Amino acid sequence: MQLESIYHSPSHRWAYAYDPDTFHLRLRTKRDDVERVIAVAGDKYDWEHHCQEIEMDHIATDSLHDYWEAVIRPEFKRFSYGFRLHSGEETVWLTEDGFSSEQPAPAAGYFEGHYIHAVDLFDAPEWAKEAVFYQIIPDRFENGDRSNDPDGTLPWGEKPEGDSFFGGDLQGIMNRIGHLNELGVNAVYLTPVFRSPSNHKYDTIDYREVDPQFGDKEILKKLVQMCHDHGIRVILDAVFNHASERFQPFQDVLEKGEQSEYKDWFHLGQFPVEVRDGVPNYDTFGFYGHMPKLNTANPDVKRYLIGTAVHWMKETGIDGWRLDVANEVDHCFWRDFRRAVKKANKDAFIVGEVWSDSLRWLLGDQFDSVMNYPWTELVLSFFADRTISPAQFSDRMSKLLMRYPQQTNETLFNLLSSHDIPRAMTRCDGDIGRLKQAVVYQMTTMGLPCVYYGDEFGMDGGDDPDCRKCMVWDEDSQNRDLFSFYKMLISLRKEHAVLRGGRFRILSAETDGGSLIYERMDGNEHFTVWMNRSDEHVELSHPMIAGGWRDALTGERMDNPDGRLAIGLEPNGFRIAWRQIE
Amino acid sequence: MQLESIYHSPSHRWAYAYDPDTFHLRLRTKRDDVERVIAVAGDKYDWEHHCQEIEMDHIATDSLHDYWEAVIRPEFKRFSYGFRLHSGEETVWLTEDGFSSEQPAPAAGYFEGHYIHAVDLFDAPEWAKEAVFYQIIPDRFENGDRSNDPDGTLPWGEKPEGDSFFGGDLQGIMNRIGHLNELGVNAVYLTPVFRSPSNHKYDTIDYREVDPQFGDKEILKKLVQMCHDHGIRVILDAVFNHASERFQPFQDVLEKGEQSEYKDWFHLGQFPVEVRDGVPNYDTFGFYGHMPKLNTANPDVKRYLIGTAVHWMKETGIDGWRLDVANEVDHCFWRDFRRAVKKANKDAFIVGEVWSDSLRWLLGDQFDSVMNYPWTELVLSFFADRTISPAQFSDRMSKLLMRYPQQTNETLFNLLSSHDIPRAMTRCDGDIGRLKQAVVYQMTTMGLPCVYYGDEFGMDGGDDPDCRKCMVWDEDSQNRDLFSFYKMLISLRKEHAVLRGGRFRILSAETDGGSLIYERMDGNEHFTVWMNRSDEHVELSHPMIAGGWRDALTGERMDNPDGRLAIGLEPNGFRIAWRQIE
Repeated sequence: MQLESIYHSPSHRWAYAYDPDTFHLRLRTKRDDVERVIAVAGDKYDWEHHCQEIEMDHIATDSLHDYWEAVIRPEFKRFSYGFRLHSGEETVWLTEDGFSSEQPAPAAGYFEGHYIHAVDLFDAPEWAKEAVFYQIIPDRFENGDRSNDPDGTLPWGEKPEGDSFFGGDLQGIMNRIGHLNELGVNAVYLTPVFRSPSNHKYDTIDYREVDPQFGDKEILKKLVQMCHDHGIRVILDAVFNHASERFQPFQDVLEKGEQSEYKDWFHLGQFPVEVRDGVPNYDTFGFYGHMPKLNTANPDVKRYLIGTAVHWMKETGIDGWRLDVANEVDHCFWRDFRRAVKKANKDAFIVGEVWSDSLRWLLGDQFDSVMNYPWTELVLSFFADRTISPAQFSDRMSKLLMRYPQQTNETLFNLLSSHDIPRAMTRCDGDIGRLKQAVVYQMTTMGLPCVYYGDEFGMDGGDDPDCRKCMVWDEDSQNRDLFSFYKMLISLRKEHAVLRGGRFRILSAETDGGSLIYERMDGNEHFTVWMNRSDEHVELSHPMIAGGWRDALTGERMDNPDGRLAIGLEPNGFRIAWRQIE
Repeated sequence: MQLESIYHSPSHRWAYAYDPDTFHLRLRTKRDDVERVIAVAGDKYDWEHHCQEIEMDHIATDSLHDYWEAVIRPEFKRFSYGFRLHSGEETVWLTEDGFSSEQPAPAAGYFEGHYIHAVDLFDAPEWAKEAVFYQIIPDRFENGDRSNDPDGTLPWGEKPEGDSFFGGDLQGIMNRIGHLNELGVNAVYLTPVFRSPSNHKYDTIDYREVDPQFGDKEILKKLVQMCHDHGIRVILDAVFNHASERFQPFQDVLEKGEQSEYKDWFHLGQFPVEVRDGVPNYDTFGFYGHMPKLNTANPDVKRYLIGTAVHWMKETGIDGWRLDVANEVDHCFWRDFRRAVKKANKDAFIVGEVWSDSLRWLLGDQFDSVMNYPWTELVLSFFADRTISPAQFSDRMSKLLMRYPQQTNETLFNLLSSHDIPRAMTRCDGDIGRLKQAVVYQMTTMGLPCVYYGDEFGMDGGDDPDCRKCMVWDEDSQNRDLFSFYKMLISLRKEHAVLRGGRFRILSAETDGGSLIYERMDGNEHFTVWMNRSDEHVELSHPMIAGGWRDALTGERMDNPDGRLAIGLEPNGFRIAWRQIE
């Protein structure tokens, strides 16, 4: 056995409570090196009468490693444990003390699964686990009130520049609520709506005022109420890492320098506070002098910003927050933020913007989810760019899934497009077949899907500002076939709990060809999804438990004599098979 | 290169802020597989102008792995990074996206070192980093007031049983303050002093009352004041996982059952609450029915217990808390506990009792330290039991040190004996030579040493209650040579900052013989410690920077011509060499 490759740590993603009674243990070994792993667990205060052996599941494989998982329900909510690994004739024990060929005497030196406390669990709100999100940039979605258009508003649909305004507003969203309902989404995420000089409004001037270009507080309340009446949750964008240079406290600092009562609201270097030769002498978002970074460790700033979040929740009844540049704000701030937000509404949903590994924010004390850009990049590399094989896709997806506990994977925010990356359609080079496969994957895998406004009509667009074009409302310019397709897949996801909470496993992923088969399964239902990412017709066949298979979209019966399902797929085709578990 | 063995994760012990300007990155590789590792870091918003290459230090080796560390001072407190590994002609890059043979285009897909916030740092109080602790069981240390002796108090020095009382008290500690000063310790940890039916008092009846066998609130205040006057800090034992069955709220539950207003203060199963056939139908500490577990997630319980902690801090001025069975209490409780305790006294020190890997409590939001039992077991296996070789000791110690960030290792509570394990002297089979070597190691390595009362006089004792014998005050029964030895080593540690905060590295550890050489070094001083754990005289020689070496205990000059130090060591001998760095 290659001992050097084995990894386990008794915390975080390797050992965590899944629910108040259940613990998950994970272990990685070198790929194809170990045949069986058994978790040996017992109560350290009385091992003899309370020990059990749990065969670990081989839950994932990446290019280098196999991953094993044990699901344990400890009798007294606490347990000590070790692992017994088998490979051929070789048996190895692993405890916290290290490796040994014989079982070490329990339980000193074993790993510990400490007492499970429900209050420590990572536990996103139930509604969020059922959600299909829809992201809207208010300026670009619909102009419902021309009276609030800013000066210089461009004609709807013109090519956007970085500083273009198109007059979209909150009334526009209300006018199009029917579209959201028709599409079937049940949650919207609005990019910022508070007073700001820009079209994107990620540089806030006044956190307590709705930007007059978009409406006012009363209109925001009306919008939230209307969404709720239509079964749609609403989350807003909290831009707490930085403000606009025109934010009054920063203006005060510019004016009064060291005398300003707000000098500790920012991360200042010297006085006077200034940008010289393009370089600010204070901390900013990126290197943008007009976006000074807020000092979120300052109790006054913290009170102001968290107070802002709670204020809008109470005023409007919104259902949560998306947190901009969340990774550059301190963890203490986010812990207090969570506490206040969940106190205001225990069902509030908190999604952070973090582009890389986000484990530190997803331990139950900070966020419920993050925007899952690593997932986006991988899915588009496979379905859109087609630069990696199904086997590589499988390897990398498995590795991504092993980054987080299972319940976290179930609530990650899976997007194919957003305001910060080129649209999926552009990434697919305009090929609807590729996009459809990506959408099938998005809607049938673990994690919350989010549709970026217009993707459902086949809108394209490269890097910002091109990915922020005006919504296409002219039916002739909409891809209606794609729209139907989105509706169908969203509806499928909403109808089947297994597509949201069931186990995900890749069953087959070709190294040379283009086929990929994966499944979702829980105690009631079983889905298998078959993909052909090639330009040839293929005939796939895979061992599959007998009986009751149907095409999930057409209802057509699928026979599987001999315990195999055989499926022919056209170029770029897919098929979703479903059965009820008796 | 054996890629399967390589491990890095962009958080916790693998990537952490050391201070407000400094980040540490760690990476593990298969032992002897990789020659150089370079961390390549840059700012993701402007990589080209702000990137740097940092050669990683080879900081530790265990039986399977090498560990590498980079110390990074990012220009803007944030950075993205990857690793370049070299082995012979082979070069491999590692980023968050995985391995590649060429450098991936920065910075998408790289690991991220997020913005460093001082408020998120793990940062123990300065005094604690300088501390040498002394643990006292009040009933067994000194009887200073016979008027408060409980009925049935046994004569001082009799063999203790589980239920023996010896009349020790707070006045007794005051009477012996001179002993603490003479020994040189500057902090004491008292096992519980609050009202409880037992001699150990780990089953509390009344958290707000000093046990009358020990004194009262006024005497506790006087003791703390006297300690402070003598340069000694005081921490008390907080037993918040469970209470005594005689704790009034539990009595209320026993009496009123489901009608009790305290029924949510515990983890109850059914009513009536009872122990049947020795099995409690409620959660307890271990399986002890007389120690019902407290429901620390209940806001009332939380308020009461945290209020208790703050109450005693305010009333008496104590300097912190040791937390009993800390691993079975929820993390939310400890976060709130820390917040309240640090608010009451920002210099308060918090030490948890956790016997296994404690990373989850040591991320800056909960504890400052834990009782380092894995260290105890390893040190005693080597110096006392002599069941492992110096090489094995070195491997395992390196592995332990790699469990935690550097600043955490610097504040772990390193003990050789306690009330819960046999005394070191017994573990050494009465061999003073072995014990002295263990003490040398304890006083010259990273982490806070704690002396268990009486160890300094060579007291012995097996498992509880034998390890809780009465303190030996009769000079004829004290090992005065050992006492002088303790004084000398404690004094050495206190005089040299490098022994507390300097880098620790094992320089040589024999596989077959008995010799071990390690060093401590900072910018000002350099120590090397030489050990001979064999029954033969040995002549050791090791390459060592030239000039200025002296015996740290005798002051005697040590020549090192040819850039080597040559040291002869008697059986079980040791030598501590020291030089000032010019």
